[in-house]
Amino acid sequence: MQLNFAKSNGLVPAIVQDHRDGRVLMLGFMNEEAFEKTVSTGRVTFFSRTRNKLWIKGETSGHYLLLKRLEVDCDLDTVLVHAEAVGPGVCHEGYRSCFYRTLEAGDWKVTDKPTYDPAKVFGP
Amino acid sequence: MQLNFAKSNGLVPAIVQDHRDGRVLMLGFMNEEAFEKTVSTGRVTFFSRTRNKLWIKGETSGHYLLLKRLEVDCDLDTVLVHAEAVGPGVCHEGYRSCFYRTLEAGDWKVTDKPTYDPAKVFGP
Repeated sequence: MQLNFAKSNGLVPAIVQDHRDGRVLMLGFMNEEAFEKTVSTGRVTFFSRTRNKLWIKGETSGHYLLLKRLEVDCDLDTVLVHAEAVGPGVCHEGYRSCFYRTLEAGDWKVTDKPTYDPAKVFGP
Repeated sequence: MQLNFAKSNGLVPAIVQDHRDGRVLMLGFMNEEAFEKTVSTGRVTFFSRTRNKLWIKGETSGHYLLLKRLEVDCDLDTVLVHAEAVGPGVCHEGYRSCFYRTLEAGDWKVTDKPTYDPAKVFGP
């Protein structure tokens, strides 16, 4: 049973969920090479659509995602990555999860607290 | 803060997570109309890429997803839908979640039990 990379131009969405408490941390995209690197290295690896190249999550920040378990959906076109997040946060904006805003009365309100200072990790 | 529908041809991935226990149930795509319908009706609505039209999840099966909370990621290009799943399962294959297979020794193994018989819901 092969993943269906053809459906979305060679990419599958990859949902990353904290393996301990189930918090959804981020969504990235994997091409076949990123998927294979994730499995073979145990470090979650995406294909960056903006930079058009492989992206080992954490390669700059040290905030790696360590693979714990991989699930696939019925259509074989989306993967669910259960991972251990190294460091204080997955989001480059300084939060544990990229999902730190909630829809309230028609606006996206910040509903989570920052866990680190991105300027100290990525530079000013 | 508007969702970025332009990045992926008018669509954003929408992760659906059970609002009670955090189980990830499925991933769909929303265009702007599907997003607005989801918010205004409280029933999670996608844009079906294969049928090329709006798709109220549950319109055939009765297994609706009732919106509880909506989060957005840092790039405003992915939404996380916390929902109550009506009925025994979200997946048309007869499982609670579309993610019912796990990678084990290089193969996708079924690691969950069916919760209903799809032939009785969708016909043989």
